[in-house]
Amino acid sequence: MPDPFADLRNELAVANRILANEGIIDAFGHISVRNPKNPERYFISRHRASELVEPSDILEMTLDSKPVVPTNVRLYSEMVIHGEIYKARSDVNSVCHHHAPAVLPFCATGVELVPLFHLGASMGDKVPFWDSRDEFGDTNLLVRTPEEGASHARALGPHFMLLLRRHGASLAGRSLRECVFRSIYTTRNAEMQLRAMAIGTLGPLSPGEAEKCGSHNLGSRGVERAWEYWVTRLQKAEATWAAAGLPRMKGLAEVAHPQTAGLKSSKSRTPSSGRKLARARKK
Amino acid sequence: MPDPFADLRNELAVANRILANEGIIDAFGHISVRNPKNPERYFISRHRASELVEPSDILEMTLDSKPVVPTNVRLYSEMVIHGEIYKARSDVNSVCHHHAPAVLPFCATGVELVPLFHLGASMGDKVPFWDSRDEFGDTNLLVRTPEEGASHARALGPHFMLLLRRHGASLAGRSLRECVFRSIYTTRNAEMQLRAMAIGTLGPLSPGEAEKCGSHNLGSRGVERAWEYWVTRLQKAEATWAAAGLPRMKGLAEVAHPQTAGLKSSKSRTPSSGRKLARARKK
Amino acid sequence: MPDPFADLRNELAVANRILANEGIIDAFGHISVRNPKNPERYFISRHRASELVEPSDILEMTLDSKPVVPTNVRLYSEMVIHGEIYKARSDVNSVCHHHAPAVLPFCATGVELVPLFHLGASMGDKVPFWDSRDEFGDTNLLVRTPEEGASHARALGPHFMLLLRRHGASLAGRSLRECVFRSIYTTRNAEMQLRAMAIGTLGPLSPGEAEKCGSHNLGSRGVERAWEYWVTRLQKAEATWAAAGLPRMKGLAEVAHPQTAGLKSSKSRTPSSGRKLARARKK
Amino acid sequence: MPDPFADLRNELAVANRILANEGIIDAFGHISVRNPKNPERYFISRHRASELVEPSDILEMTLDSKPVVPTNVRLYSEMVIHGEIYKARSDVNSVCHHHAPAVLPFCATGVELVPLFHLGASMGDKVPFWDSRDEFGDTNLLVRTPEEGASHARALGPHFMLLLRRHGASLAGRSLRECVFRSIYTTRNAEMQLRAMAIGTLGPLSPGEAEKCGSHNLGSRGVERAWEYWVTRLQKAEATWAAAGLPRMKGLAEVAHPQTAGLKSSKSRTPSSGRKLARARKK
Repeated sequence: MPDPFADLRNELAVANRILANEGIIDAFGHISVRNPKNPERYFISRHRASELVEPSDILEMTLDSKPVVPTNVRLYSEMVIHGEIYKARSDVNSVCHHHAPAVLPFCATGVELVPLFHLGASMGDKVPFWDSRDEFGDTNLLVRTPEEGASHARALGPHFMLLLRRHGASLAGRSLRECVFRSIYTTRNAEMQLRAMAIGTLGPLSPGEAEKCGSHNLGSRGVERAWEYWVTRLQKAEATWAAAGLPRMKGLAEVAHPQTAGLKSSKSRTPSSGRKLARARKK
Repeated sequence: MPDPFADLRNELAVANRILANEGIIDAFGHISVRNPKNPERYFISRHRASELVEPSDILEMTLDSKPVVPTNVRLYSEMVIHGEIYKARSDVNSVCHHHAPAVLPFCATGVELVPLFHLGASMGDKVPFWDSRDEFGDTNLLVRTPEEGASHARALGPHFMLLLRRHGASLAGRSLRECVFRSIYTTRNAEMQLRAMAIGTLGPLSPGEAEKCGSHNLGSRGVERAWEYWVTRLQKAEATWAAAGLPRMKGLAEVAHPQTAGLKSSKSRTPSSGRKLARARKK
Repeated sequence: MPDPFADLRNELAVANRILANEGIIDAFGHISVRNPKNPERYFISRHRASELVEPSDILEMTLDSKPVVPTNVRLYSEMVIHGEIYKARSDVNSVCHHHAPAVLPFCATGVELVPLFHLGASMGDKVPFWDSRDEFGDTNLLVRTPEEGASHARALGPHFMLLLRRHGASLAGRSLRECVFRSIYTTRNAEMQLRAMAIGTLGPLSPGEAEKCGSHNLGSRGVERAWEYWVTRLQKAEATWAAAGLPRMKGLAEVAHPQTAGLKSSKSRTPSSGRKLARARKK
Repeated sequence: MPDPFADLRNELAVANRILANEGIIDAFGHISVRNPKNPERYFISRHRASELVEPSDILEMTLDSKPVVPTNVRLYSEMVIHGEIYKARSDVNSVCHHHAPAVLPFCATGVELVPLFHLGASMGDKVPFWDSRDEFGDTNLLVRTPEEGASHARALGPHFMLLLRRHGASLAGRSLRECVFRSIYTTRNAEMQLRAMAIGTLGPLSPGEAEKCGSHNLGSRGVERAWEYWVTRLQKAEATWAAAGLPRMKGLAEVAHPQTAGLKSSKSRTPSSGRKLARARKK
C-alpha cells in the first residue's frame, strides 16, 4: 500500500535539512507539520539531528504528542511544544523550535526582537517572551510536560514567534514553507539587530509597514522563490556527499525546484518533481 | 539565428552567481545591465534567486521595466529600481540591488557609511539615504511603482550607492564588472565599519584620498584582477556541483579567466574564453 | 596480536577531527582519554594538528606524561595539562585543551563565563581562572613543567572547565564524548555571551537550572544525538576529500552512526559499526 | 636546464594559496621571499590574486622592484613594499602585505594592536603605524614610489608588523613560513582583540611573556606543525577542485606534509616530498 503521506514526509525531511544547511538548527531543534487530512495529528522526526532526517524518520503523533503507532525508537523530549500549539491554534500547520546563535542573545538578555527590514517582518507584529521559571521554577529548561507545553502555547498567544528565556525560539506557520521562511528570516533579522545595536539607535518598521511587509513576503511568490533557493543549496551539498560515496539522503529528489513555470532550461530540468509538488499543494 | 547578446547574457548570469557566491545576495536581490546597443533597454533575470540564474533566465526590458517580448514568467517586483536609474543616469550601465547582512545595520540605524580603506572608496564621495516613508507613507517597503522608482533614482542623484532605510542598498556602475566590484567592496567596507565603531573613533579617507582611490581601484587593472578571482571561486564551486551530477550551470565557461595576457600556464588554460571576452569588451 | 585499544584509538582520533571540523581546535590544542583498563595511563596524539590525527598517531602516556613505549617522535609540550588532571581527578576520563576564538576574549579580559542557555550549562557550576604569572612569573604561557601542570590542575579543582589567562581553555569530562560535548557547547555559550553583552544585561541560568540542565544534557541521550551529528558532518567532509583522491583518514568508519536503534533506513546503513560501538561501550 | 629555484617557486606559490585559503588575502595582497642565493633579489607573483598563484607566475625582482628578466606581464603596483624592506632589513627574508578584515578596523581607528595570547605574540614587541598622509598628503593610499616604499620601511623599523592607516598591514619574517605564521596568527589576535574590547578591559601579555612566547612559537616546532596543518587544508580544497575537473594547481605536491619524522602512516604517505623539503631547508 503506498503511503498517502509520502510527499509530506519528503517535504518535512527536506525542511529539516534546509534548516540545518542554513545554520538555524544544529544537533538540537525540530520542525513539525500538521496532518492535512486529520488536524488532530502531526508529523515530526524521531530523536535525531535535523541534518540527518530522512522520510523514514518521520512519525505521526497525536496532539497529546504520543506516537499514533507505538514505537520503541527514541523521541524528542520536547514534542509538547508542537502538540500544544496545534491544539491552541487551528490556523497553525507547522511549528519549529531552534537555538540559532543569532537569536540566543535575545533569549539571554530579554532585549526585544523588532523587525528591521522587510523580510524580518515575517516575525509578526510582536515577539513575546516565555520564562519557564515564572510558572515552573527551576527546571532543566526543556518544555517536556503537557503543562509546560500549554503554558508555552499560551505565551505564544496569537503571534507567530516566541522567545524562550535562556533557551531558544519557537515559531509557527500557516504552512511548512512559511514556517521555514519565518525561521530563517527572523534569524537574519536577529543578526542584523545585534549588529545595528552596536552602532546606533534602531529605527524599526512602523506597525503599518510590518503588517504590509509580512503579508507581501509570506505570499506564495516570495516563499516559493526562497524555497527554490534553499532546496538548490541543499541539493548542491547533498549531491556532493553522495558523489563521495555516502548514502544519498532520501526525500530531496521529490521536492526539488518548485518554480517550473516559465523558461525552458528550468522546465527541462525538473518537470516531474515540479508537477508532483504542484499536485501536493493542491491537495 | 545566433543571439547577438549571448555574451552579455552569459556575463550577467555569471555576475548574478558571483554575487551569490560572495555572500552579497541570498534568495532576494538582483543585478541588471543596460543594452550596449540600445540604451533604452536593459537585461535582467526573471524572478529567481541570483545563485540560480542562467543565461536563458535573462530577459530584456524597456526603461519602463516592461518585458520587450511579452512573457508569462514571473518577474521581479522591483524592476523599476533599475529602469528609473537608467532613465536618470546615462553614465550608468549596470544596477545592483541587495540586502547584504553587513549593510543592513546601516539601513536600520541611519548611521552614515564612510570609506575606511582604499577599496571601500569605490562607494563614491557620499552614500545618500532614501526613506520610502517620506513620500509614500507605510508601504511594504518594496520599490514597485514608477513613482517609487523615480523617487529612489532622485535620491541616488549623481552618486553610485544608495541606502534604503529598513530595506537594503542599490548600486550603480559604469559597467557590469564595476557594479559587481562596488557591490562587493562596499559590503566589505560596511563590515569593517561595524567592527571599527565598536573599538574606536573612525578615521575615514579624506575627500582627496577617496577620489584618488576610487579612480585607481575602478580602473581596469583592479577590476579585472578581482573579476578573475571571483570567477575562479565560482568555477571551483560550480565544477564541484557538476562533478556531483547536478546540471552544469550555463554561462561560466564563456567568461572564465579574463587575465590571459602573460604567462603560459594561464594562457594555455583558457585561450578561447579570454579572447572571446576581449572581443566582447571591444564591442 | 590485535591492539586491545584499537576502538579507543579510533574514537580518540575521531574526537580530534571532530573538534577541528567544528572549529574548536586549529593547528594547536589537544584532547586525551584515560586508559579504561589502567587508570595510571592515558592516550594522546603525537605532536600534530588535531585535524590530521589518525589512530596510528595515538600514543600511551604515564600520568607523569612520559611515553609508555620510548619514542623519538615529537610530542606535545603541554601534556602535563592532561597527566596532572588525571592524577588529581579520578572521576575524569578525558581532557581537552584549546584556544577557540570565542573563548579567548574571556581569557584576555577576565570576564567570567556564565551559562546562558541549557546546553551551555555543560560548563558546570563555575569556570575558574588560572593565571600562570601568579606562581611562575613571565613564561611562554605554555603549561610544560610538572609544577605548572599541578598548579593548573589545582585551579581546575572540582570543576569541569578552566580558563587560562592570555592563553585558552582546558576541559574535563567523565567520558571522551562528554568532553567533546562540553568543549563544543561551552564555546557556543561563549559566542552567545560575547553577543549578548553587546546588547544588554545578562540573565544567566539560576544555580538550580544550571545543575538540572547539566545533568540532563550530559545524559547519554543528548550526548549520543550530538555525537551522531558531529560524526556525520565529519564523514561528509572526509568522504569528499577521499573521493578527491586524498588518502582516506583512518578511524572514522569504526565509530560512525551510534544511534542505530530504531528505524530501518538507519539500521541498514551502519549495522556493524553501530554494534561495534555498542560493544565498545559495554566494556 | 632545471630551474634552481623550482622548490622556492613551489613554496611561494603554496604560501600565496595558503593565505587565500585561510582568509588573510582576497583578490588583493601579496607575499614575497628573498632569493636565498642572492640577497639583492626577491621573488614575487605577477599581478594576480593569491588564490590563483602557481609557480610559473613567480618572477624575480631586483631590490628596486624591477623584474630581473624584462617582461610585459602585469606586475603588482606596490612591489616597493617588499623591495624597500629587503634593502633596510638584512634579517628579513619574506614580506607579506594584506587587508584582512579583522586587521582593517585597527587601521581605520588607530587603536593599537596588542598581543593577547601566546600565538599572537608573533606580532613582536610593538606594531607601529604608518600614515601615508604624513609625508605624501592625499594619495590613492597605495605604496607605489620608491620614496613611499622607503618611508613605509622606515616606519616598520626593527619590528615585524606594521599597520597602514586606512589601508592594511605589512609583515616581515626571517623565513617564508615564519611570515605566513605571523600573518595568520596576528590576524587571529586582531579578531580576538575586537571581541575582547567589546566585553571588558584588555589584559595583554607582559613584555617578558611576549618575548618568550614569540621565541617559542616561531621556533621550528610550532611553525612546522602549523605549516603541515595549513598545507593539508589547502590540499583538501585543491584536490576537490581537481577531482571536479579543474586544472590541478601546481606546486603543492612538492611541499606537502613536512612532518614526516615519526610514525609509519604519515611516512608512507609523503616520503619524497618530505625529503625534498628537508633538503630544500638545508640549502
